[in-house]
Amino acid sequence: VQEEFSLGELAVRFGLTLRGEPGLKVRSVATLSRAESGGLSFLANSRYRRQLESTRATAVLVNAEDEAHCPVAALIHPSPYLAYARIASLLHPTSSPAPGKHPSAVISSSAHIAASANIGPLSVVEDDAEIGDRVTIGPGCIVQHGARVGADSVLVSRVNLYPGVTLGQRCMLHAGAVVGADGFGFAPDAGSWVKVPQVGSVRIGDDVEIGANTTIDRGAIDDTVVENGVKLDNQIQVGHNVVIGAHTAIAACTGISGSTVIGQRCMIGGMVGFAGHLTIADDVVVTGCSLVSASIKKPGSYSSGMPTVETRLWRRMVAHLRRLDGQEK
Amino acid sequence: VQEEFSLGELAVRFGLTLRGEPGLKVRSVATLSRAESGGLSFLANSRYRRQLESTRATAVLVNAEDEAHCPVAALIHPSPYLAYARIASLLHPTSSPAPGKHPSAVISSSAHIAASANIGPLSVVEDDAEIGDRVTIGPGCIVQHGARVGADSVLVSRVNLYPGVTLGQRCMLHAGAVVGADGFGFAPDAGSWVKVPQVGSVRIGDDVEIGANTTIDRGAIDDTVVENGVKLDNQIQVGHNVVIGAHTAIAACTGISGSTVIGQRCMIGGMVGFAGHLTIADDVVVTGCSLVSASIKKPGSYSSGMPTVETRLWRRMVAHLRRLDGQEK
Amino acid sequence: VQEEFSLGELAVRFGLTLRGEPGLKVRSVATLSRAESGGLSFLANSRYRRQLESTRATAVLVNAEDEAHCPVAALIHPSPYLAYARIASLLHPTSSPAPGKHPSAVISSSAHIAASANIGPLSVVEDDAEIGDRVTIGPGCIVQHGARVGADSVLVSRVNLYPGVTLGQRCMLHAGAVVGADGFGFAPDAGSWVKVPQVGSVRIGDDVEIGANTTIDRGAIDDTVVENGVKLDNQIQVGHNVVIGAHTAIAACTGISGSTVIGQRCMIGGMVGFAGHLTIADDVVVTGCSLVSASIKKPGSYSSGMPTVETRLWRRMVAHLRRLDGQEK
Repeated sequence: VQEEFSLGELAVRFGLTLRGEPGLKVRSVATLSRAESGGLSFLANSRYRRQLESTRATAVLVNAEDEAHCPVAALIHPSPYLAYARIASLLHPTSSPAPGKHPSAVISSSAHIAASANIGPLSVVEDDAEIGDRVTIGPGCIVQHGARVGADSVLVSRVNLYPGVTLGQRCMLHAGAVVGADGFGFAPDAGSWVKVPQVGSVRIGDDVEIGANTTIDRGAIDDTVVENGVKLDNQIQVGHNVVIGAHTAIAACTGISGSTVIGQRCMIGGMVGFAGHLTIADDVVVTGCSLVSASIKKPGSYSSGMPTVETRLWRRMVAHLRRLDGQEK
Repeated sequence: VQEEFSLGELAVRFGLTLRGEPGLKVRSVATLSRAESGGLSFLANSRYRRQLESTRATAVLVNAEDEAHCPVAALIHPSPYLAYARIASLLHPTSSPAPGKHPSAVISSSAHIAASANIGPLSVVEDDAEIGDRVTIGPGCIVQHGARVGADSVLVSRVNLYPGVTLGQRCMLHAGAVVGADGFGFAPDAGSWVKVPQVGSVRIGDDVEIGANTTIDRGAIDDTVVENGVKLDNQIQVGHNVVIGAHTAIAACTGISGSTVIGQRCMIGGMVGFAGHLTIADDVVVTGCSLVSASIKKPGSYSSGMPTVETRLWRRMVAHLRRLDGQEK
Repeated sequence: VQEEFSLGELAVRFGLTLRGEPGLKVRSVATLSRAESGGLSFLANSRYRRQLESTRATAVLVNAEDEAHCPVAALIHPSPYLAYARIASLLHPTSSPAPGKHPSAVISSSAHIAASANIGPLSVVEDDAEIGDRVTIGPGCIVQHGARVGADSVLVSRVNLYPGVTLGQRCMLHAGAVVGADGFGFAPDAGSWVKVPQVGSVRIGDDVEIGANTTIDRGAIDDTVVENGVKLDNQIQVGHNVVIGAHTAIAACTGISGSTVIGQRCMIGGMVGFAGHLTIADDVVVTGCSLVSASIKKPGSYSSGMPTVETRLWRRMVAHLRRLDGQEK
């Protein structure tokens, strides 16, 4: 049974202006088009006003401009999406497991585990690992020797922390994430390769989220660093000695080659490829599927890639490009 | 020891026309070039006729056009590859493990597990999960609370189903697949990010195959949906609230951003990137490595990207493109 | 406590020319800019000479050309990076776990496990698997029936070998790697798909390294092959029946479609997409984010893709390309 909250209570608690009956109650979030009685929805983009006008939600979070179009109770905030994020956390709270260690977990006697932490079934915590207060180590996770997990962090399931990596507080890591595997370092030796030991580690700040199957390699000598507040989507690859600045968000499938330094508050689209040894300024936006092969020194939005066209037109464009080049030879 | 089948028996069972001795027997599949006595091969593309002409297979599946070039017994079918798929399943049957629960599995007492299901070693089945008839949950899998797996589905190994996701019948999920991790949703708040709870789920239809290390995120509010008969290769990323239409096949490493809707019977190449909030029509083909940044409204084949050339030519093409732009400034 | 080595000892052992005091001792590797007393650094690229000139390392590995710029003891070698790789392995040795089987591992009685091997906690070794001398099977690994692991190989953690795959000697596989999942093979049948059984296997040679969350599919009929000395970074996808020639190195996130054959000693950048059924010559270099849609017959360096520019310029370039095409219609 989900708890109910009155609009008046929400308005007070979250600093919203209410236009409507304060006693009305909501109990879950909903999209504008599917909301029913008891549902709270939001309009984050005026493009979807038509959906607002026909919604059956009990109340909608809107900004002042869209409020006139809201046919039901309106909770007004300059950033309806931000207000939504906060209220959704209230309406749909996540439950933490009770403190304790599942009997099937394999835990070293030299590991330091806070009494308030939960160690899930079939997980492994090796020698000298440190698990902070109220941490959740979900089922199937592996925390190798000397790795540290800061207070209130959650390793959802099947997360793998290699030896010595450190994780800050309030982090969330999703299934299949691997932190601290060897960077890709090999020295050429007469037609074959000699492995370069990867003796650095990975340091991850506070409030970092890491998506499913994302991989972050340990440094070759110094550490790979992910600063506070960074948000990484699924299947991202972070090479050795990369630094990702605070509060940067990166969408899925992006790959960052070794030693590249990305600034703070950047927004990187999905499937972007970064060459190695680059420096990307703060406040840079890179749109999806771009190839970043040189440093970016100024804030702003950057792109590359040719959008899809019909295959027969594409063949002609490719032929053109080749001819263009031919003319210059 | 593999079972043998006579060509006559195969012709009757699979509706094939036999040109050759019905009593000849085959016991395994083989490529045209490596086949030996007892081998059954196929020719799906006339380009490989030369291999047909020198094959030592006992019999070959061909279409009527290629039959004249077959130097050995011919099993004739309009779609030799389809006939091959069916016969290969007969010659190389997969064995299901016997019903039962491995003693090392950690299974909640509130989980509903069919008596005919097999729960493999070191797997986890949490509270209220439902495991259907004849389901195989392989080693190291994690089925979180309330997740449901339909009859005859197979989770090969190390598959991770998050809470509440549902899987239809006869699905096959490969190692490392993650279904139901949080979508990538964060609201900006004065230079940092506030997590948007992802309260939707994932609904997967019948006869869906999901490749190794593929990730399918749960919806932000409504569900992410993968319809019946969809085939997903390895390392695909499916964002929150994506819908993939029935019988669409997607090759490896493709990423689909949030809320994009892909039609039925589409064929999507590998490493294709889809922007978010797009609509792709039914029966669309997208070739590999394309960037789909706008909706596609008509069936047909679509492409983008510049194929590889020698690096020194490529540098000139890039310079050209930059100059083209400069002339317009 | 790390062991110390004198420069004289290192010079003799690794064939280096020493300019400096043979009795000086080093105990760990360090970057030029962060090295302190006891640190050994290297200069692999003259571009970083400025860092050399201000280093506080006890000694630096340099080539003969850079030696004059070294303000501290110099260990001279034609390939400082190669010498560094070897010495770093001496200064930072990895410790192998003692032989034995963790009691939480689930090991078939029909598996053949060398007495000198280590089987880690919560791992699974199925029927008829073969684990060679001094092999390490880390925590959470799954070795399915009949899979073979050659002597001195290491499966770090959570590695998944499907049935029947074979691994050579001295291989290293990182967390989340999946070897031998089904290739992506489906035959069209009136708007839906029939699975084509993938009856081949995967054969991996000696001295192969496979990165975290990389996937290598089993062959459709014949085997997928990775030859000796191949180095694969993280999140690489290798389709069924691909052959990767000896000593080829491939950076992260690259995808290779089915049946493509890559030559020996190639160097493939990150996020490269290979179409299927191609042949790539020996000694080919492909730069990152390229789309390889045709075979490459000659050694050399190949590239594609448009590097990132400011988004507003990019929009104009895309418009140009479309117009170019329009003019030809």
